[in-house]
Amino acid sequence: MKSYRIGIFGLGTVATGVVKILREQAKTYAKRFNVAFEVVQVVVRDTEKLRDPKTQDLPISDDPKSILENPHIDIVIELIGGVKIAKHIIEQALKAGKHVITANKDLIAADGRRLAKLAEENQVGLYYEAAVAGGIPILRALSTSLSPDEIQQINGIMNGTSNFILTQMRQHKLSYEDALKLAQDKGFAEADPTNDVQGIDAAYKLRILTDFAFGKQVSQNDIQMTGISTITQTDLKDVSDLGYEIKLLATVSKSAANKLQLSVAPTLMPKDHPLASVQNENNAIFVNSRYSGGLMFYGPGAGEYATANSVVADLLALVTGSAAPAKFNTHPSSSLALAGPKDRIASRYMVFKVADRPGIIHKLSAFFLMSNINFRNIRQYDPVDDSTRVVIITYPASDAQLNPVKTTIRQARGVSFIHEYKLLVEPKENSHD
Amino acid sequence: MKSYRIGIFGLGTVATGVVKILREQAKTYAKRFNVAFEVVQVVVRDTEKLRDPKTQDLPISDDPKSILENPHIDIVIELIGGVKIAKHIIEQALKAGKHVITANKDLIAADGRRLAKLAEENQVGLYYEAAVAGGIPILRALSTSLSPDEIQQINGIMNGTSNFILTQMRQHKLSYEDALKLAQDKGFAEADPTNDVQGIDAAYKLRILTDFAFGKQVSQNDIQMTGISTITQTDLKDVSDLGYEIKLLATVSKSAANKLQLSVAPTLMPKDHPLASVQNENNAIFVNSRYSGGLMFYGPGAGEYATANSVVADLLALVTGSAAPAKFNTHPSSSLALAGPKDRIASRYMVFKVADRPGIIHKLSAFFLMSNINFRNIRQYDPVDDSTRVVIITYPASDAQLNPVKTTIRQARGVSFIHEYKLLVEPKENSHD
Repeated sequence: MKSYRIGIFGLGTVATGVVKILREQAKTYAKRFNVAFEVVQVVVRDTEKLRDPKTQDLPISDDPKSILENPHIDIVIELIGGVKIAKHIIEQALKAGKHVITANKDLIAADGRRLAKLAEENQVGLYYEAAVAGGIPILRALSTSLSPDEIQQINGIMNGTSNFILTQMRQHKLSYEDALKLAQDKGFAEADPTNDVQGIDAAYKLRILTDFAFGKQVSQNDIQMTGISTITQTDLKDVSDLGYEIKLLATVSKSAANKLQLSVAPTLMPKDHPLASVQNENNAIFVNSRYSGGLMFYGPGAGEYATANSVVADLLALVTGSAAPAKFNTHPSSSLALAGPKDRIASRYMVFKVADRPGIIHKLSAFFLMSNINFRNIRQYDPVDDSTRVVIITYPASDAQLNPVKTTIRQARGVSFIHEYKLLVEPKENSHD
Repeated sequence: MKSYRIGIFGLGTVATGVVKILREQAKTYAKRFNVAFEVVQVVVRDTEKLRDPKTQDLPISDDPKSILENPHIDIVIELIGGVKIAKHIIEQALKAGKHVITANKDLIAADGRRLAKLAEENQVGLYYEAAVAGGIPILRALSTSLSPDEIQQINGIMNGTSNFILTQMRQHKLSYEDALKLAQDKGFAEADPTNDVQGIDAAYKLRILTDFAFGKQVSQNDIQMTGISTITQTDLKDVSDLGYEIKLLATVSKSAANKLQLSVAPTLMPKDHPLASVQNENNAIFVNSRYSGGLMFYGPGAGEYATANSVVADLLALVTGSAAPAKFNTHPSSSLALAGPKDRIASRYMVFKVADRPGIIHKLSAFFLMSNINFRNIRQYDPVDDSTRVVIITYPASDAQLNPVKTTIRQARGVSFIHEYKLLVEPKENSHD
């Protein structure tokens, strides 16, 4: 039997889950994999903080050196999050010849490639499957099963908090505010929910996926972000009546002209699309590719045990050799530019508030005609207080076509533009011959 | 750059796909993975058979020795299917020190463990991800990401033909016969569709999953099979009105008492369950486990390129060392017995044809009371020709409870039992503390 000594940074939810799994499964891992793990040191910021009773017997310290300079520790698990301190810890650990497992999406998004290189130079492993979508093994799938393939597009529901809020709004007819409060009460959303509901958290994960799938490093600023906080019950009813579901979708897609388009935004999709069935705090990542067609990976995007299981899976992969660390796509097959307004083509769901008087629809439709944009669907509702809601679903149009229309409408009298969400663009069937 | 010489057995759809992918991606694989592949020999039964123009330049023979005894061939890809000849080929190849990649589900189901052992003894790799659910990387997920976990249940839509037929029946109100004909016209179903529509094909895949997830080898006879051929439009309407979708589901689940329950059968599930969104020829495998909760893997279950991509992914895993062969669970954590009638507990959708006269529902309900089975839902429809359709959804009941009821009903006058499908049983939320 091989024994490994582990040092863990952090002792929050996921770290506690890791400790519990390792203890609950110790006998099984010994029998199945002939390995034993011992957590010999934990380092936390505040050693006085209340801890789970099941972790109280662990040696704890607030000094990083108690792990980094302990020559008996083989493997470091970094679960403190954040960038600055975590980066320093991982660098020191790798340089000291220790393998590292982390769930740190911010750090891997910003610095994953460099750290992976550092690990290689020091002939140790750096594993980080848990950094994207918690319990869903998407990075390993991209770097093994999808490695022969040409990926065209990835659409992910990668923020459990937002998806929980949207699901509760739809199922129980709650307002955004009430659904957010419910998410906060259940511990799914933080007191300041900005990172989750504005798409920032999903954008970090999208950056990692983009590097894996397309070999392209992008920054947060390269990703168009729209949050969910302005979605109303009326929107949900419209969308449902029209046969769609709305989800906060993180999207990266490659056009025929090799332009990459990145966004995190509420997106409409047909109700029978597999992504539409993803409820509450679950995540899913849908990958379109040349050979495999459409693959989807679904599961819990967060949670004590699901993410912890992903960390332990990395640990077992490392010690049994069953899988190499998931790899960044370091040899991009083409030089990819970022998409501009002309390349961003999609159908749109657009909502207007217009004055309840003759000629207003005529005026509104003239603006669209100006850019030669065709309607697929238009609905005007009964007026309330002298104004009426108009909902339009357009045929595919580019941002470049639509921007002047929106500018004109913003200046027009009697018409106000409320908001606009894109419809999911599905890649055309490939022809191989 | 490392070069590998490949011999391929078979040149049907999947093999042709493999050859095309290797050619289309040769430059990319050289750049990204620093490897080159050369198909130096193909062996087929009938060398005169018409072939895809893109494979006409390959050296072809009907003599297995041209691959097996060729010392320059490093890797054998077996895609002829069937058991007897394929087994011989794989054994000979492994003994000759050649790595083997196969998509042969029948053979792996029956003999996978022994062949894996033979590969290990000869220090070569045996890869077979494509044997289960074509393009979906489920075996690798089970043997890496889910290796720390305790699997409770697997539910899979693993026969594209049946799922296509059921989807077409639902969407276009076709009869089973017309939907089958459509599937045959599209090449999804064979002239004799028995293997697909009776659950035999899905059962082979379920056996492999059962061995991976639970370390238990089972035979076809251990799996209760019910086909889809008796499902009618009336059933689909009932099921839909009640809020369910019906799918041919392959299921293996472990009870609290460590009993394994295996079946392939039409199964009702709530419309918003992720498995319910799986349309047409797509497959999906839903895994419930202690730590990860519910994970689903969705994608094309067959097809030239999807399955071929899976074969090429195995090839790249083998030569780059990114992943070890997916492994059977060779150290089961507990000795598992097969479930008996008492252990098979589920809610049921049951359909009866009863005489249109007073007291018939009273009589029918008395039979259920006999076994103390409660109804969750009962519907009687308007009579047609002196008889009427009665649909019952029961609360969970075991086969042992239900069997005497069915026997009694079969002997009763004025009541005939048409058929019965189970409702999906979802594992209870785990309590960890």
